[in-house]
Parts: sequence; structure tokens; C-alpha cells
Amino acid sequence: MKDYEKTFKEFKNYLKKIEYLNSTEAVLYWDMRTVIPKQGVPYRGEVLSYIGEQKYKLLTSDIMKNYIEYFEGIDDLDPVTKACYLNCKKEYEKQKKIPKDRYTAYVLAASESEAVWEEAKEEKNYEKFKPHLQKIINFQREFIEYLGYDKDKYNTLLDDYEPGITVERLDTIFSQLRDAIIDILNKINESSVKINTDFLMGKFDKKDQEKLSLYILHKMGYDMDRGALAETMHPFTIKMGSDDVRLTTHYYENDFRSALYSCIHEGGHGIYDQNIDKSLYGTLLSEGASMGIHESQSRFYENIIGRSLEFWKCFYGETKKIFPQFNNVPLMDFYKGMNEVKPSLVRTESDELTYSLHIIIRYELEKELINGRLSVDDVREEWNKKYKEYLGVTPKDDEEGILQDMHWSDGSFGYFPSYALGNLYGAQFLHKMEQDIPDLYSQLEKGNLAFIKEWLNKNIHKHGSLYKPEELIKLVTGSELSAKYFIDYLYKKYSKIYNF
Amino acid sequence: MKDYEKTFKEFKNYLKKIEYLNSTEAVLYWDMRTVIPKQGVPYRGEVLSYIGEQKYKLLTSDIMKNYIEYFEGIDDLDPVTKACYLNCKKEYEKQKKIPKDRYTAYVLAASESEAVWEEAKEEKNYEKFKPHLQKIINFQREFIEYLGYDKDKYNTLLDDYEPGITVERLDTIFSQLRDAIIDILNKINESSVKINTDFLMGKFDKKDQEKLSLYILHKMGYDMDRGALAETMHPFTIKMGSDDVRLTTHYYENDFRSALYSCIHEGGHGIYDQNIDKSLYGTLLSEGASMGIHESQSRFYENIIGRSLEFWKCFYGETKKIFPQFNNVPLMDFYKGMNEVKPSLVRTESDELTYSLHIIIRYELEKELINGRLSVDDVREEWNKKYKEYLGVTPKDDEEGILQDMHWSDGSFGYFPSYALGNLYGAQFLHKMEQDIPDLYSQLEKGNLAFIKEWLNKNIHKHGSLYKPEELIKLVTGSELSAKYFIDYLYKKYSKIYNF
Repeated sequence: MKDYEKTFKEFKNYLKKIEYLNSTEAVLYWDMRTVIPKQGVPYRGEVLSYIGEQKYKLLTSDIMKNYIEYFEGIDDLDPVTKACYLNCKKEYEKQKKIPKDRYTAYVLAASESEAVWEEAKEEKNYEKFKPHLQKIINFQREFIEYLGYDKDKYNTLLDDYEPGITVERLDTIFSQLRDAIIDILNKINESSVKINTDFLMGKFDKKDQEKLSLYILHKMGYDMDRGALAETMHPFTIKMGSDDVRLTTHYYENDFRSALYSCIHEGGHGIYDQNIDKSLYGTLLSEGASMGIHESQSRFYENIIGRSLEFWKCFYGETKKIFPQFNNVPLMDFYKGMNEVKPSLVRTESDELTYSLHIIIRYELEKELINGRLSVDDVREEWNKKYKEYLGVTPKDDEEGILQDMHWSDGSFGYFPSYALGNLYGAQFLHKMEQDIPDLYSQLEKGNLAFIKEWLNKNIHKHGSLYKPEELIKLVTGSELSAKYFIDYLYKKYSKIYNF
Repeated sequence: MKDYEKTFKEFKNYLKKIEYLNSTEAVLYWDMRTVIPKQGVPYRGEVLSYIGEQKYKLLTSDIMKNYIEYFEGIDDLDPVTKACYLNCKKEYEKQKKIPKDRYTAYVLAASESEAVWEEAKEEKNYEKFKPHLQKIINFQREFIEYLGYDKDKYNTLLDDYEPGITVERLDTIFSQLRDAIIDILNKINESSVKINTDFLMGKFDKKDQEKLSLYILHKMGYDMDRGALAETMHPFTIKMGSDDVRLTTHYYENDFRSALYSCIHEGGHGIYDQNIDKSLYGTLLSEGASMGIHESQSRFYENIIGRSLEFWKCFYGETKKIFPQFNNVPLMDFYKGMNEVKPSLVRTESDELTYSLHIIIRYELEKELINGRLSVDDVREEWNKKYKEYLGVTPKDDEEGILQDMHWSDGSFGYFPSYALGNLYGAQFLHKMEQDIPDLYSQLEKGNLAFIKEWLNKNIHKHGSLYKPEELIKLVTGSELSAKYFIDYLYKKYSKIYNF
């Protein structure tokens, strides 16, 4: 036993308290989204803020500082101990650099801003939200000054969600991706293939939708004995502990695709969180490696698996049993219907191909806003211009335009790129998976999803956040992150469907 | 502004933290009973114990001690400040007197004992549970030594649930009640009235049961914007805050009475908790006055209101709309069916009349066990003897006998009397209510339950635990607690139904 191991054990006992508070926050939050009565919300805010304070105290205490300094002085730390203390150090410094009163002011401003955004969206009135957006951006810029930045101010925000990624790299990767998608879009527009989706509309009983969702989640390997599925307005995944990772979805009775794909998507997140190695418990490393890596898992299941022909070859039968209205729809019509490309205005309703364009637009605007090169007065015009240019569509109002996402209202600048990065990571993982498992597609056709989960568990999930995303992608695939794999995947998929 | 008021304000800010932790515990517990996945339970135990520790620290800190000493030195405190600090003092001293390691050992033993009880109950095997019962009783006796006692050891346990009540008083009150109930039972046995309940059995759809329950809860004045209703194995009420008080029930598809009456019962608890004066928030006094007073509210709504002829005169119509199978059942048959008296073995399934006998049996046994005059070897025989003597029935096995309740397994000795005290308090309140509201029964017949809630709000609920139960009953009714009112109520009700 190395000398420091005893201290590390003590340190983990300390960190466990933070994990207990994380778990507590998760339960309070889940409850707030799923059952809390209307009038219980304000008090819940007070409770959450009290729990948050206790966590802040533990994260920034002298005890924490002493542990960090202790481990900093040791050269031959094992990888887990090293990653653990470095992670704490990063968090400690970040929390210490931002003055507490400024952070409190920001939390207040963000919660106000979120409330105003909701009203403004309903009223389709960007002007109402604009002063709050300005306030939130000011806070972000102020915090970046405290935290410092390298080359581009936006890098500091990116680091919160995707450690290691920079504007420089994103500019390159995203412009390749954007050009490729626009090229494919043009080919699709010129294609003579017309896809029928009429049969996808109808009446889909909620209970039946739930049945199909649970069936697919079970097949994917999401463990219901360590999870739960509830309904909320906006679907999400939340972890109360390694053995308690829950999902939510939303059912629309006129369109069964929404709940189904949000279940598969959240199921991907859930399978990740359920399969992080238990030895990482108590180190604060039993989280996903980054938001981008997390999204890679959800989008891998949702799109690469869940919208593939092989998947539907296997599961169309069960689907028809639950929804007999598809009995007269041939498999290929159904598959194509599920994969129709149609540039649209709302990110969350977009198809697999154009989704990333929605993200790239947001990335390009955020970067400019944060660097002060674009003002809140001009951002709406810029938004509409980019939608016209990339997707050929123009919002008829602010609700389906600049006010559609809540992210800017609650200060999540730097988050959007994770979604597109998830697509890229996912396709790069797929490329490696195809090499490792030669009969991948024939297995998938048989509905054997267990081997996919096994591969992801072994290569990605178990590591938690032991590795940075850039280390992980290299460790798993042997190469650095590249847009190439996703672009190849898109060409291959859509050239078959649209015959180009 | 009095000198101490500033300090009291600070004190309340300190106590608020304890209330936040109470609320947190409530959410964690509710979630554990309603949604947690099977494998999430052990970790939830760890989280709850961490939160409990934080609460313990606040309750027993030197800060707390200093506040208590400060207020102790002031003579002219207003009633709220006085009740608040005295309540904290009592808790502080209690927590301090029991050595922490012994308390931790007890919590562990209780959770083990609970698990064994569950198995033993299923296996109908008291011998399996016996050593654990012995252990729990030993702990109780040890704690009583730490805490001290006056005259009877059992008094110390009673004080946890019903401050001020003593064995001496209970012996008197309960023997009057026991004799009266046995007398009424004899009259019923001799009565020529035979009640038919066949029509109460059938198939009652869960959704329909929920509909009826929600309808009645609404009529009672339980505020759904500040509450929720979920399903659990054992119904309960839980408070996450003044504006978030939730209920659970359990639906049996072959008997609609169970869910309906558990909803009305829990609704009574819920209405109490929802209507404590908000000015008491932050004093730890925004709780019920005692378990007995709390039970008086739930049992008042369940029995005195919910099983009355006037109630059914009004709500039978709506019930028949939801359950048309009653269309051919005359009101009086239905009312009598709902009030059939039938001595039985299981407390939770017993009728309004014999319920208290189940409690009295437990009280008589607990008292002897705690004082060491009855051993765990003999208690089963004693149990069966009393059931034969008071109720004329004999358990065929331990599951429907001595193992039926979980209370002894988790150490809740001293709790049972609250249930019967609730009946007594309730009838005494009714007596006063009848004087205050001359048209009580004609209003009830019209389904106007609002004025009942208003009376209870004004006289009982708003005070929270500002008054001890003995003070409260005197304040509200002008007299000390007496069995007379409940006994009168029982004679009046059952002589009409059974014609004696």
C-alpha cells in the first residue's frame, strides 16, 4: 500500500458527503419536475439553495484545500487519485475565483431571466427578453474575467462542458461539418425520391406508447431495477446514485416518434450513468467524461442505432403489434418515413441530418455575443439570416426563432456545441465498433443490442470522467476527434435513402 | 420592539436550516416510498443518514445551546418565542442525554429488526422476530434510564408522541372506554338488526376510485395546488413545507372503501398541516400539537364526518354516478353497510367501534413490556388472551396476531395510544362544534364541508404546536380530556343503527 493511499481513503470519505448532497439535489430536482404542487415551488427553491450552499462549503473548505495540496506534492500518484484531486482542484479554484456575492447575484438574475424568457416566448416577443439576455451575457463576461481565458473568451465557457475543446478546433470541425451537411441537403433537394410520412400521423394511445418505450429500453439494456421512467414537459436523465438513474419523456398522442426517440435518447444517457465503474464512487469521477461524450451516447442510441434500417428490421414487428395501423405499411416505407430530411425551424424537432446545423448557428452566435462582437440588438437578425442561409427557412415569429431554447435564459452559454460534438464522437466510436465487431449489423438485425451496450460499457462508460474527452476518444479509437467519420456516415446513410 | 425580538429573528434564521433539512428528508422519504427503484434503496439510506447527521449537529450545537440559555434568562417572553425555545430545549436535552454511539447502534438494530419482522410476518413466525423485539425493548429501557422518568417508565415514551399524557390518566380513560365499547358490542350481538354488506364487494376500477377520492378531498377542502396524491402500500401524509403537504393511498379493486377512507383519513392530516399559521414557519412549531391531536383530525374526517348518515345523504349521489352498481341499493342500506360492526383480528381493517379495543390491547401490553413485567416469551399468549376477552376472536396465526403491526419492530413504543386518543379528542371537539354551529348537521347534509374546515382551522390547525395537547383541548373545549364525549357519541350512533 502506497503512503498516500490512507489519505486518499480519508479524502474519499470527505468527497462522499459532496456526493450525498449531489444525490439530494437530484431527488429535490426530480421531484420538482415530476410531482411538486404549484405552490410548493418557491419553498423548494429555498431548500435547493440551502443544499447548494452546503455543497459550496465542502467544495471550497480548507479541508479540501489541504487535501489538494497534499496530493499535489506527490509525484507517483495512480491515475484515479490523480484525476480525482485534479478534478477537485479545478472546481475549487473556479469556485474560489468568482466572488460569492457576484455568483449569488447571478443565480438570482438567471432565475428571473428564465421566468421572463418563458413569458416572452409565449408572447413571441424577443424585445421583452432582450434586457435579461444582456444581463446574463454581462455576468458571463464578468466571470470570464475572474476565471481568465486563453486566446478566446468563449474557451472558458466551453471548458465547463467540454474540457480541452477550443474555438480554434471547433471553427475547423464545425465548418467542415456545416459544408458537408449543406452539400447533402442540396443533393436531397435535387433527388427525385419523395418520402411519404402521412402514415406516421394518427392517434397513438399514451399507454401504448409507454409500452413500446419500455420494451425498447429493456432491449437496449437500460436497467429498470436501477431506474424509473416518468413524464415531464421536457425529457431529461438524472442520476441519484449509481443504482438510481432515472429518465423522463413526453407523450404526444398524435405522433409516437417523439416519446419513442426521447426514450431511446435518454436511455442512452441512462445506460452511460448506470455503467460507470463502481470503484469510482466517492471520487466525484463517477460522472460522464463531458457533456459531449454524454450526448454521444444518447445520440448514438437515438440515431445511429434507433434510426437504422437494421433496428427497424428487428423491432417493426413489435411496433406493429402495438400500433396495428402500420400493418399495411411496408418496412422500407416506414424506415424512410422515420428518416425524412426536412429543414425546419425548431432544433428539437429537426431531423438527424439538419440537427447539427441548428447547433452550429447557435455556436457561431454565442461566440460573437460573448466576445462582444455581436450585440443583443442584432442577434435576432443574425439568427434569421443564418437560418435562411444554412437551412433555407425563416422563422415567422420569435417563438420558433431566437426564443425557442431556454439555454441562453439560464446562462448555459457554451453548452450547445456538446450536442453536435456528441454526433461526431458517436460516429467515430461507431467506426471503431465496426472494426471490433464484424457482424455488428447482422446482430443488430436480430435485435441483439446487448453486445453494443457491452462494447460501450467496456470502452467508454466504465471510465466515468477518469479521462478528459480528448484522451478518451484517442484511447478508444486511436485517433483525435475528427468530423470525417460523421460526415462519411451521413453521406453513406442519405445517399442510400435519397438515391444520390 | 422588545429587546429579545432581534435575537429571536436570528434564532429563527438558524431554525430555518433545520426546517430545510426536515423538508429535504421528507422529499427523500416520499421519493423512497413512491418511485425509487429497488436497487436505489441502500444508497438512499446512506443519504438519509447523512442528512440526519446534519440535522443532529444543528439541534445539538453550541449555537443552539447559547440561544436556549439566552431566552431562558428572559421573563416576559411572548407565547410564540417561549414555546419555540422550550421546544428546542426539550429536543436539545433529549438528543444530548442519549450517547450518540448508543443511538447509532439503536438505529441499526431497528432497521435490522424491521427487516426481520417483515420476513417473520410473512412466515407467520413470531419466534424468529422475538430476539429482535427483545433487543428493541432493551434499547428503549436503556434510553429511558438516560432520559429519566416520572413514576412509570412508559411515561417517558408517551411523552415523545403525546406530551403531558401519563399512564395514570390513560389507565383511567382507557378502562372507561374499553368497558363502554364492550358493553355496546354486547348490545350489538344481542340486536336483531342484521346488516348486509354483500353489495359492497365487487369490481371497482382504480381510476374510478381515484376520481371519487379526489372529488371528496376537494369537497373537504384539501388544497391540491399545495398537495399531491400518490399510491403506496401503506397510506401516509407527509409535509415538505407549508405549501406542499402530500397524501398517499392504496387502491384495492375488490373493495372501494379502503382507498376512500384512507384518502379521507390522510386528507384530515393534510388539511391540518396545510393550515398551520404561516407566522409559525421558522420556529419549528409549524407541526401538529401531538400525534394524538393529529390523529383526532384524520379520524374526525374519516369517522365522524365520513361515516355519518348526513355525509352519505349528500355524497351518495356522486358515488352512484361513479359506481352505478349501487343504483339499486337504498341509502339506508348503504349507510348501514358502511357502519357494520364486526369484531376482527386486524387493527387496520377494524370498524369504528372496535378499533379502540385493538389500541387498548397494545397499550396494556406495551406498558408491561417496557416496565419488565411481561416478557417477550409470554407476550403472544397475553395478546391472544386479550383478543379473546375483549373482542371474542383468536388469531389463527402470528401474521394476523402479534406480528400484524410494524410499530414494535421499528421501536415506536408509546405511539399506539395516539390513535385512540385521536378518537377521544375528535369527539370532544365535535361536542364543542355542535354548540358553536347549531346547523352543523343540516349543513353537512348539503355537502357544505367548508364550515367544518373553517372551524378546525380557526380552533386547532392554525396553532400548530404552540400549545401542548392538554392546553389545546382545554383552550378549545373548555374542559380536560375525557372519554365521556366519545363514549356518548358511540352509544348514540350505534343505538340508532342497531336499534337498542
